[in-house]
Amino acid sequence: MAYFENINAIKYEGASSKNPFAFKYYNPEEVINGKTMEEILRFGVAYWHTFDADGSDPFGVGTAIRPWDHLTGLDRAKARVEAAFEFFEKLNVPFFCFHDVDIAPEGSTLRESNQNQDIIVAMIKEYMATSKTKLLWNTANMFTNPRYVHGAATSNNADVFAYSAAKVKKALEVGKELGAENYVFWGGREGYETLLNTNMKLEQDNLARFFHMAVDYAKEIGFDAQFLIEPKPKEPTKHQYDFDVATGLSFLQKYDLADKFKFNIEANHATLAGHTFEHELHVARINNMLGSVDANQGDPLLGWDTDEFPTDLYSTTLAMYEILKNGGLGRGGLNFDSKVRRGSFDVEDLFHAHIVGMDGFAVGLKVANKLLEDRVFEDFIDDRYSSYNEGIGLEIVEGKADLRKLEAYALELTEIKNQSGRTERLKAILNQYLLETITK
Amino acid sequence: MAYFENINAIKYEGASSKNPFAFKYYNPEEVINGKTMEEILRFGVAYWHTFDADGSDPFGVGTAIRPWDHLTGLDRAKARVEAAFEFFEKLNVPFFCFHDVDIAPEGSTLRESNQNQDIIVAMIKEYMATSKTKLLWNTANMFTNPRYVHGAATSNNADVFAYSAAKVKKALEVGKELGAENYVFWGGREGYETLLNTNMKLEQDNLARFFHMAVDYAKEIGFDAQFLIEPKPKEPTKHQYDFDVATGLSFLQKYDLADKFKFNIEANHATLAGHTFEHELHVARINNMLGSVDANQGDPLLGWDTDEFPTDLYSTTLAMYEILKNGGLGRGGLNFDSKVRRGSFDVEDLFHAHIVGMDGFAVGLKVANKLLEDRVFEDFIDDRYSSYNEGIGLEIVEGKADLRKLEAYALELTEIKNQSGRTERLKAILNQYLLETITK
Amino acid sequence: MAYFENINAIKYEGASSKNPFAFKYYNPEEVINGKTMEEILRFGVAYWHTFDADGSDPFGVGTAIRPWDHLTGLDRAKARVEAAFEFFEKLNVPFFCFHDVDIAPEGSTLRESNQNQDIIVAMIKEYMATSKTKLLWNTANMFTNPRYVHGAATSNNADVFAYSAAKVKKALEVGKELGAENYVFWGGREGYETLLNTNMKLEQDNLARFFHMAVDYAKEIGFDAQFLIEPKPKEPTKHQYDFDVATGLSFLQKYDLADKFKFNIEANHATLAGHTFEHELHVARINNMLGSVDANQGDPLLGWDTDEFPTDLYSTTLAMYEILKNGGLGRGGLNFDSKVRRGSFDVEDLFHAHIVGMDGFAVGLKVANKLLEDRVFEDFIDDRYSSYNEGIGLEIVEGKADLRKLEAYALELTEIKNQSGRTERLKAILNQYLLETITK
Amino acid sequence: MAYFENINAIKYEGASSKNPFAFKYYNPEEVINGKTMEEILRFGVAYWHTFDADGSDPFGVGTAIRPWDHLTGLDRAKARVEAAFEFFEKLNVPFFCFHDVDIAPEGSTLRESNQNQDIIVAMIKEYMATSKTKLLWNTANMFTNPRYVHGAATSNNADVFAYSAAKVKKALEVGKELGAENYVFWGGREGYETLLNTNMKLEQDNLARFFHMAVDYAKEIGFDAQFLIEPKPKEPTKHQYDFDVATGLSFLQKYDLADKFKFNIEANHATLAGHTFEHELHVARINNMLGSVDANQGDPLLGWDTDEFPTDLYSTTLAMYEILKNGGLGRGGLNFDSKVRRGSFDVEDLFHAHIVGMDGFAVGLKVANKLLEDRVFEDFIDDRYSSYNEGIGLEIVEGKADLRKLEAYALELTEIKNQSGRTERLKAILNQYLLETITK
Repeated sequence: MAYFENINAIKYEGASSKNPFAFKYYNPEEVINGKTMEEILRFGVAYWHTFDADGSDPFGVGTAIRPWDHLTGLDRAKARVEAAFEFFEKLNVPFFCFHDVDIAPEGSTLRESNQNQDIIVAMIKEYMATSKTKLLWNTANMFTNPRYVHGAATSNNADVFAYSAAKVKKALEVGKELGAENYVFWGGREGYETLLNTNMKLEQDNLARFFHMAVDYAKEIGFDAQFLIEPKPKEPTKHQYDFDVATGLSFLQKYDLADKFKFNIEANHATLAGHTFEHELHVARINNMLGSVDANQGDPLLGWDTDEFPTDLYSTTLAMYEILKNGGLGRGGLNFDSKVRRGSFDVEDLFHAHIVGMDGFAVGLKVANKLLEDRVFEDFIDDRYSSYNEGIGLEIVEGKADLRKLEAYALELTEIKNQSGRTERLKAILNQYLLETITK
Repeated sequence: MAYFENINAIKYEGASSKNPFAFKYYNPEEVINGKTMEEILRFGVAYWHTFDADGSDPFGVGTAIRPWDHLTGLDRAKARVEAAFEFFEKLNVPFFCFHDVDIAPEGSTLRESNQNQDIIVAMIKEYMATSKTKLLWNTANMFTNPRYVHGAATSNNADVFAYSAAKVKKALEVGKELGAENYVFWGGREGYETLLNTNMKLEQDNLARFFHMAVDYAKEIGFDAQFLIEPKPKEPTKHQYDFDVATGLSFLQKYDLADKFKFNIEANHATLAGHTFEHELHVARINNMLGSVDANQGDPLLGWDTDEFPTDLYSTTLAMYEILKNGGLGRGGLNFDSKVRRGSFDVEDLFHAHIVGMDGFAVGLKVANKLLEDRVFEDFIDDRYSSYNEGIGLEIVEGKADLRKLEAYALELTEIKNQSGRTERLKAILNQYLLETITK
Repeated sequence: MAYFENINAIKYEGASSKNPFAFKYYNPEEVINGKTMEEILRFGVAYWHTFDADGSDPFGVGTAIRPWDHLTGLDRAKARVEAAFEFFEKLNVPFFCFHDVDIAPEGSTLRESNQNQDIIVAMIKEYMATSKTKLLWNTANMFTNPRYVHGAATSNNADVFAYSAAKVKKALEVGKELGAENYVFWGGREGYETLLNTNMKLEQDNLARFFHMAVDYAKEIGFDAQFLIEPKPKEPTKHQYDFDVATGLSFLQKYDLADKFKFNIEANHATLAGHTFEHELHVARINNMLGSVDANQGDPLLGWDTDEFPTDLYSTTLAMYEILKNGGLGRGGLNFDSKVRRGSFDVEDLFHAHIVGMDGFAVGLKVANKLLEDRVFEDFIDDRYSSYNEGIGLEIVEGKADLRKLEAYALELTEIKNQSGRTERLKAILNQYLLETITK
Repeated sequence: MAYFENINAIKYEGASSKNPFAFKYYNPEEVINGKTMEEILRFGVAYWHTFDADGSDPFGVGTAIRPWDHLTGLDRAKARVEAAFEFFEKLNVPFFCFHDVDIAPEGSTLRESNQNQDIIVAMIKEYMATSKTKLLWNTANMFTNPRYVHGAATSNNADVFAYSAAKVKKALEVGKELGAENYVFWGGREGYETLLNTNMKLEQDNLARFFHMAVDYAKEIGFDAQFLIEPKPKEPTKHQYDFDVATGLSFLQKYDLADKFKFNIEANHATLAGHTFEHELHVARINNMLGSVDANQGDPLLGWDTDEFPTDLYSTTLAMYEILKNGGLGRGGLNFDSKVRRGSFDVEDLFHAHIVGMDGFAVGLKVANKLLEDRVFEDFIDDRYSSYNEGIGLEIVEGKADLRKLEAYALELTEIKNQSGRTERLKAILNQYLLETITK
């Protein structure tokens, strides 16, 4: 293992110009409320962005310089596994995630693809035996190959549906084999280009059928991972069926799947849908559907999925606030579905990028935890809604009021007095906690 | 009745420079597929935009010049009723819509507000007795008054909830009194400014309680209108709970309200949520939830609700396509929730604006009807999804397939052949129908 | 020549289900105001989208099925030239456009790249000798290769600047060799990813130096093409220096280049910058800077460059309105910088797409011409601004007024009377012309 | 003076739950690089938002509760002056800004408006005699009154142009009388609703004429304020002529005004135009056009001007970075063109809001100053562009290279080696400085 030999080991002593690869705020062993940072944050490395991606974009070919560039096929796949576990160890990261095609090259037939996958899965399993790093989730890539041009489970072509089903079957088996904690569905091509050629009703019915089959098969083979749907509003298709958490929830309820799935929420997908990251986490949380997180960020001025490494401490703080309110992520984790910028093409940048992301969430965790400990917003909110704890408010909440009773009450009201929502003051407090929780 | 005396009667002979106030494409008596245009389109005038609005915007006071400008209070309210029915007759429009505060001024107490309303409702009822124009829907305005600063049914203040309930009670009674076909809820302040001070779970629970109370009371008094929720993603609040159709659907399902409500879909709200107008109509339609329509359009380059009169013939055509596929709008209609531009401040502009909107939907109806008659897109779609009519596709749809069976099938596939989606060709056909359906 | 043998020749008899490849509205020989449609519209085929692109997107590999797929290197490049001229002839299109790397593969050195290019340029020249199709413009691709990761003329790396200069030198020579009417600069990587690592001042100074060198060299070799800058606000970089026409204009003025360049305006780039297509054309026109057009359209709900074939007849009409007001495009043309959707992967779709685009601009031309002939908007505007033709207005325009005189005048004004802007009426007229100019 | 008596004096001891109205990070006397914070930041209070605004929005009437609510006309205007100077003193703020109509009610004639203004200006002058607070800038409101429905200097109505000229004449005189440091033009209605009725060329020519007249008159009366243009892309009009800094620059250059104006840059206007705040500051700075700042922030997910008080410390840091690089703001300042949220309706919220804003820029100043002191980004950038300090790079910069020479050089290049842009590492450093510059 010598892919990253020029990178100094991470000592958790704080980054500096002399050791730019050390964490500054993330300390996996630091205990917060009875759990270690590592246990709470459950960081994962995204195999595709870190070991496969090359920095290409719609206007340019790849720029990434990687020590396995000279290899091809299964040889390259194997080198990537070696590099991955070296990377996991140097970062001391507890989880990773992959799509089937990330780890092994597709063959010319499904059978050959599966064989390739088997070879690499066996190799990964062997590495995992001596590594602390576990599989947060795996999934089947059903968007890259041209066969998915019109969708996978929502393709107009039944052969594609069948092929996709076979891919998911294999992926569930692989998940079981490697002890995956979750299984994720991101419907990269499950949407439409134009309504003029689309039978949306049939496509969504088929998608539900597909999910039911997957759930049944996982149960059959004893693969007990948490099932997750990852919302995204658009891109690559013009409209994706899993637009946002609320849309996903309406789908799951309609098709009797709400007790079988939770959500894998990505920050950048949230903002593309017109929501903040914390909004999507919040909506999932209060519906008991917060499963896992794709930790990244978008550029608020750009209209596509930039998948930047998360650096905005407001975002990490408010995300960790929701996660702590949720009692943690359970079997989920914080997977860095993030890619280094095209201009950050060195191997070193992979470390810089993960470090800024992990440090960012460590800061977010500490600030959010302090906010919750001090009940800064909690007390404000409790007081703000206290009118529902007694009198007419209590009757409303307890279901004892109807329009007649409420009208009678309202007709006697002489004045309605509202309190200021104090938005600016609350934001000042947030800034204060952000600046003062972390001390040198 | 002499508010609009300088406007020539509408003769349906076609607009020209000599008679710019005549319809060019809308002919209420023209029969399309066994129904008249008037019966299919069910146009409604929005009282607030047409008789109350003054052209003000956040940076400027009103510009509108109206013959009732010199009056105030109930006198102005009465003048507006007179003007409204003159306007309805001159436009020959079958419906109108209003919020409680549109028709009568608020008093200093709820009781006084109700009394003001009673006076005007009686007057409207009298006018309706001799007018063809009916009430498409009414609603209670629960967003303009400062008491709704933090919401109405989702206010943190139980007194506001109660007051809102009293308003809706009255509005339901008014709806019954005037024979309203629908009752609409637009949650103008039902959302949040910041999560930092918000208990979203309680707010949504309360919103559901509110809707249940309204449904119960309508049933109690025998008001059998169709209940509608009108989605909007943002504005005036940062986030509105009824973001879009899918979000509304998730809410209604969760709170056991899905069989009691349908949607009132507004074009401009659709685009603000990141969807096309036809998308929102389609989603509502395939869930059997398409209730009524707020006919307007937004500016795709502006980020707020411009409520423009609908002039885009692509949009009206694709909307009418969905509406015809839905078997029409049932008890709903096409309400012009549209306002003349601030610079279009003459009374005449109210006519020009409604005429371009009504003509626009008349064209849309004709083009959509021709497209459906010729099964232009229908046949293409049927063929495109034909793989689900037999073989493995049929087994999938009939629930006879599982992952094992599909994998076995997929392993034997030698090649998967997809067909082109033909987007460009389909758009060419749409243009052709748009240009050639209407003949001079 | 047999790449497209299954496509029926275009007879200008009107498309139908039997001959879907015929134009319906474009007739190159039809005379409008003394010029043929072909002379006015000056359509161009974009080599890269039509002969090179494969339908790949950031989430998927190519889907396009092309008769030259089995070839590689120079063989494929030659096949594409053959196919291109067959395509031009079947479409009867007067122009084409290319980047250097579109026509010939890059070699391992600049010298080899140039040699490859020479081979293909010679072949193209030979084809052009017997073809009616001319070169609208060529350019150097300075964004795809990893060397441009930080820009070309604005790279922080002087070697890249030098390499780019060499590429432009060659491209100018090729342009001269093939008689290009224009030369285009699109600064695909001329912008920044983050200000934190950027010296914007130096980068823009260098860009100006680069443009001056190119202008000088063209003059030196006697290449008299019109030089064009193509604005785009963002993508691939976070911020592009040539954001929009106004930004380009400020740059050209600052660096003494305003008399040496005009703009190549792309519809989709306009909307990404927050402008309508017609706005950008208008701004260029009134500054005498409208050079050429990249004819396509974006999706107003998507935040990236979708480069769709232009189908929106409002957009084509309003664009042609500006172009006719400009007295035509001069040496410029309407280049289809448009790509078939990923799902439109057949060779046939290339024809369908160009036909809908060419028909769309043909309709736009006819409608715009009729609007101008009838002086529909011209007369309205002349009347609207008539206050500047006499009295105080004329004094203002003639520079005879100052604040003192205007105050004296204003103090005597008893009432200021504005006229309605009649937006809704004007849009109704636009619809009427759209529906009624084209007759079956 | 007793409008804000329940607000504790500000002691700069740091805010706490016991004294929430104290600054925590802003200390006007703290010296940074030889200047006090007060001298560097030059904070201004916006009269309109703080003393006039009522919290109304397009969907609701005002919510603000103010001690002068019971007054009207000149009495209210006078009360506001008293309150303003009490507020300035309690906040210890060195500047304020106003539009003419903010301080005095419009009369029924221009003469009466001027008289009202004279009364209040005299009163303000008297207050200023004993107050430390000076006038940062004043301006004439030429957007609220219906007469500006089609623009002011760009109106189609010459009478409106004249009236606007008279208003600006008066405002320049008032500015001189009160010793204003700057004069600002924000073209709130200088744009268009639709191109269909617009003569953009004439409108822009007239706007330039207007600016020249204003400059001439200021010179004539010896008013030596810095003249500023404030860009905004859209809202209230569909398109504003002063879209962004680059657009403003193109206009000023074209009309020979570039040496007479600088820019007043507003954060929220920047983001509405698709730029970051720091981008606009940067573009103005490197063109020597950075004049003053409207300090606020927008919501990146909302498409209108929310004018929020600035709380985002990334934004304040990167803004102060540009301002320090500019050598400060000169005669400009940081004016809080910011409004409390509609739900923050208490007088206290005005203090909370200004405090979070002032603290935010104080933090930004300290962090930016430390970044510059340590040359964190400066050194990185210098190194990054060092290829232009010698060899071919130096020749390029010195104008000694042409395409021939550069080609010769490029042909000899064997390999081009780029360096990583290190975006993620630079962002990590920014976070580190943000967290560690401020110490408890």
